[in-house]
Amino acid sequence: MKNISLLGSTGSIGTQTLDVIRKNPNDFRAVAIAANRSVDMLIEQIEEFNPIYAVVYEKDAYESLMKKLPEGCQTEVLYGMDGLVKIASMDEADTVLTAVVGMIGLVPTMAAIENGKDIALANKETLVTAGKLVMDTANKKGVKILPVDSEHSAIFQSLNGENRRDVEKIILTASGGPFRGKKKEELVNVTKNEALKHPNWDMGRKISIDSSTLMNKGLEVIEAKWLFGVERKDIDVVVHPQSIVHSMVQYRDSSVIAQLGCPDMRLPIQYALTYPDRMKTDFERLDFMKASTLTFEKPDMETFPCLRLAYECLEKGGTYAAVLNAANEVLVGEFLDDKIGFYDIPKFIEMTLDAHESKEDATLEEILEIDKWARTYVKSLLESNI
Amino acid sequence: MKNISLLGSTGSIGTQTLDVIRKNPNDFRAVAIAANRSVDMLIEQIEEFNPIYAVVYEKDAYESLMKKLPEGCQTEVLYGMDGLVKIASMDEADTVLTAVVGMIGLVPTMAAIENGKDIALANKETLVTAGKLVMDTANKKGVKILPVDSEHSAIFQSLNGENRRDVEKIILTASGGPFRGKKKEELVNVTKNEALKHPNWDMGRKISIDSSTLMNKGLEVIEAKWLFGVERKDIDVVVHPQSIVHSMVQYRDSSVIAQLGCPDMRLPIQYALTYPDRMKTDFERLDFMKASTLTFEKPDMETFPCLRLAYECLEKGGTYAAVLNAANEVLVGEFLDDKIGFYDIPKFIEMTLDAHESKEDATLEEILEIDKWARTYVKSLLESNI
Repeated sequence: MKNISLLGSTGSIGTQTLDVIRKNPNDFRAVAIAANRSVDMLIEQIEEFNPIYAVVYEKDAYESLMKKLPEGCQTEVLYGMDGLVKIASMDEADTVLTAVVGMIGLVPTMAAIENGKDIALANKETLVTAGKLVMDTANKKGVKILPVDSEHSAIFQSLNGENRRDVEKIILTASGGPFRGKKKEELVNVTKNEALKHPNWDMGRKISIDSSTLMNKGLEVIEAKWLFGVERKDIDVVVHPQSIVHSMVQYRDSSVIAQLGCPDMRLPIQYALTYPDRMKTDFERLDFMKASTLTFEKPDMETFPCLRLAYECLEKGGTYAAVLNAANEVLVGEFLDDKIGFYDIPKFIEMTLDAHESKEDATLEEILEIDKWARTYVKSLLESNI
Repeated sequence: MKNISLLGSTGSIGTQTLDVIRKNPNDFRAVAIAANRSVDMLIEQIEEFNPIYAVVYEKDAYESLMKKLPEGCQTEVLYGMDGLVKIASMDEADTVLTAVVGMIGLVPTMAAIENGKDIALANKETLVTAGKLVMDTANKKGVKILPVDSEHSAIFQSLNGENRRDVEKIILTASGGPFRGKKKEELVNVTKNEALKHPNWDMGRKISIDSSTLMNKGLEVIEAKWLFGVERKDIDVVVHPQSIVHSMVQYRDSSVIAQLGCPDMRLPIQYALTYPDRMKTDFERLDFMKASTLTFEKPDMETFPCLRLAYECLEKGGTYAAVLNAANEVLVGEFLDDKIGFYDIPKFIEMTLDAHESKEDATLEEILEIDKWARTYVKSLLESNI
């Protein structure tokens, strides 16, 4: 029985994690769940999974939940960052699955690592903004960082039983998003609804926009560096529109190992929880009579400058990736609010990166500070541009 | 330094094995080499690799070699099955790579296993005809059977670091051979030259014909059963004309692990010698901008009945596979001599199988006896049909 503290239980990854737990009640237990502000769904989850703790991040949502909570509920309800840190560090948890969206994930993830919890990581920001710090601390504490992302899980699976010194290159596949094959002039005026239509994966709004700009792949490239200890030149991105080959590892003898499957996030979620074992599932099996043609193409960094920006941040090191991430998060929010255009996202990211003074070996506090600066800076840019 | 005894040094696998040894003189040494009757090439190899032993299988070729051997040659030259058994068992060898073609491979391979040598196996007949005996003996002796075939090496690599109990299915890929997509009526009168034209691999004549009938894949299905301990229902064949995905393993959580690469036999040869490590090579790297479309289709067992026959032998068990193999070997020889037509191969195999009385848990002697019977029987069929 593995006890799981689930940070971000009402989002896409969170509900799919609970589905995995639901199907395997003898193997997994949700000892804590946490949501930002989806009170009604959280109450349902509390009633079904009966966790020791539930956390609501937003104060007003917490208060609303306390009023709606059924009589005699055994679950202790907490709120805010203190609540997240508490359930990330609780004695009863073996593994902390961090599926919260955004920078909120970083502090509780660090708390979990400090307390020796294995991390099933679905929060991109953790490694993008604080990769060095997180991996150094995890190594010091002997804690495993298990990727939940389908691409990183594929790489992780393709590294099974192999020596790291034999790795020559990591090949991240990218679906190419809804605008694959389009050119810049066709995309200048795209709307958020067009950008939200991902061809293969049903995901949250933020990550769907990131997929349409290829920033999602850029962030994954940065994560891959930290998760797998490889350099920029040894991480390739290949566009693979069918999303069947989830990613690959090339070894120094020329052999390539790949992980394939139908697009179903429950597989990497479950694998992060069962590693190094695998548990039987009823997920759809890959059928090569259906997935009968797999294609590969070069990513177009002219049309999708966000991927180029991510590669540049990786090369420059320091705290550039934290700035990239913060500026992107603000700008995607603005795009989703119809305040800015599609190409304003890379444009203002680049301006923010240009204004940034990077720091080597930043502490957690410094990273949070830089994150805050980048958000403020990009907002000021937007204001002065309107 | 790994000392290798190489049985079958002048064939396609043999010369490529020597190429791997040549490029890594600090890692590998050929302590013995053996050929059927290619005397001139064997002399060149003796001069270059200076092995302790060299074996010529055919007596007359041995005598011709003894006359040509340069003065002062340090290599001791042996002949016949005794010679093969001697170098398969010699103290100086760590690994025996068996790349001889045909049933000749079985006895020396068994001798090597009995003497505790790891086996790098490129001889199909060994497992097809005596799979149970070979694997039981290898397990008893604690000997590793390392596949050299590209497909089985791919499966072996895809099993790295995994638990066998998690394996749900093995997916063998097949190029489909030179007649993929053709129908029976188009193939009735094909010539050996058409059958020898393999689209992706440059191989020996026997295996090229086996590829054109899909018997090669059938034999691989039978080998896979023994190598990986899976049942007939858990071994699928998928036609993949590009020969980039060399084979796959599907796990019980739905995940599929695949091994990919440019078609180059030196990779599986080297991997069998370096396992579980990998050594740097200058082999061509997979370029997804070139290998940009990978396709998959169902094998056509109507047009290619040899694959169906192999599956049937696997199901029936006993010594049927030994008969399948023996009859096929004779018939491919006849086809290469322009004595019979393309569809006579499956036809006479099936007739021989029908006449066979199978035996469970056959000994080595019994298997050799059955092999002899099948060859005699199929020849008598041919004679009475002419």
